[in-house]
Amino acid sequence: MPEPNAATKPKRQGRPPTIENARDRILDDAARLFARDGYDGTSLGELAASVGVTKAAIYHYFPNKKEIYEAIIVRTLEGLRRHVSQATARTSGPEEALFRFMTTHADFFEGHYDGFLTMLVGYGGMENVVMLAEAQKLRDEHEQALRRIITDGVTTGAFRAVDIDVTSRAVLSMLDWMVRWFKPGKGRRAASFAEDYCDLMLGGLRG
Amino acid sequence: MPEPNAATKPKRQGRPPTIENARDRILDDAARLFARDGYDGTSLGELAASVGVTKAAIYHYFPNKKEIYEAIIVRTLEGLRRHVSQATARTSGPEEALFRFMTTHADFFEGHYDGFLTMLVGYGGMENVVMLAEAQKLRDEHEQALRRIITDGVTTGAFRAVDIDVTSRAVLSMLDWMVRWFKPGKGRRAASFAEDYCDLMLGGLRG
Repeated sequence: MPEPNAATKPKRQGRPPTIENARDRILDDAARLFARDGYDGTSLGELAASVGVTKAAIYHYFPNKKEIYEAIIVRTLEGLRRHVSQATARTSGPEEALFRFMTTHADFFEGHYDGFLTMLVGYGGMENVVMLAEAQKLRDEHEQALRRIITDGVTTGAFRAVDIDVTSRAVLSMLDWMVRWFKPGKGRRAASFAEDYCDLMLGGLRG
Repeated sequence: MPEPNAATKPKRQGRPPTIENARDRILDDAARLFARDGYDGTSLGELAASVGVTKAAIYHYFPNKKEIYEAIIVRTLEGLRRHVSQATARTSGPEEALFRFMTTHADFFEGHYDGFLTMLVGYGGMENVVMLAEAQKLRDEHEQALRRIITDGVTTGAFRAVDIDVTSRAVLSMLDWMVRWFKPGKGRRAASFAEDYCDLMLGGLRG
């Protein structure tokens, strides 16, 4: 998913934005506030104050809070998908591909912690995250990429004949559960844990 | 943690309970309602109606909704701890101990799904689960038991010289993340997934 370059990027119609990169700045601040105070605990007034614009300026970009929440999830998954697919595009084989998948995922998670917290912890109490079709598609593509790496490993004999479903679920569980215990900027990097997880997945426990 | 037997069990003081096993029935129904409608979406009136008692009867056992929530978590962790420690008390070695730890954890999770959902998905939007000291202690004991199994394996040479922290975290991540995708009564049992996870952890991916 390459970024559109300046020459081909469509011009935005209607009222010009009053702040630079307004949409991204709104999403950044919203993710930070949702992660800190929860979805219900964050008002559009607080968000506007945080970005340094009026509520009307927020409404210029998003019709309501829910769409801001959903845009954070889609943007987070797009970034994850792009980074991981670039990192795994050319590898020496399934082992390196798995290593890159896991460490790049962890690295992107650490760099976009608020977005992941917003996405994976969800809003509205116990309610599961309401996934947009677009977010679900991105998440599926991410999982499919991992399944291809594992399938490739099994096919070439680099990996044992493991169950593809169970193995990809195990890998993603380790990475996704990080949102519940990892805190950025305290001690080891997320990618360093992912390296150890990958070593464990490849080599197993048996002595 | 043995159950007190009937002879030594202290008699409850004050007004006698009007329904049998009232406390457990309140917690069962509360977990089901919290899991379905969320913590904020569940009122004590609805809970009383579900149990088939008055709100006053609920207040006889619990001063407020928060303490019901916390009692669900403590009871869930106590049960998990008891079942897993019984299952791992006598094993032929670290491999079997890890297998029993993982499958018993998954089995107890499936049987007490609402309690786990209440505990791990939490309440109040993005807020992390507020852990009581008692719940934290039980959770720590569960993790310590797993760490002992892994340490034992490394010491005896049954396992490679893996990092104990990372390995126990990897195992618990796979089990805990089940709360996000597993649905009881649909297809495979949770313990069957845990068997495959355990095989993967022991044998690794490499062919």
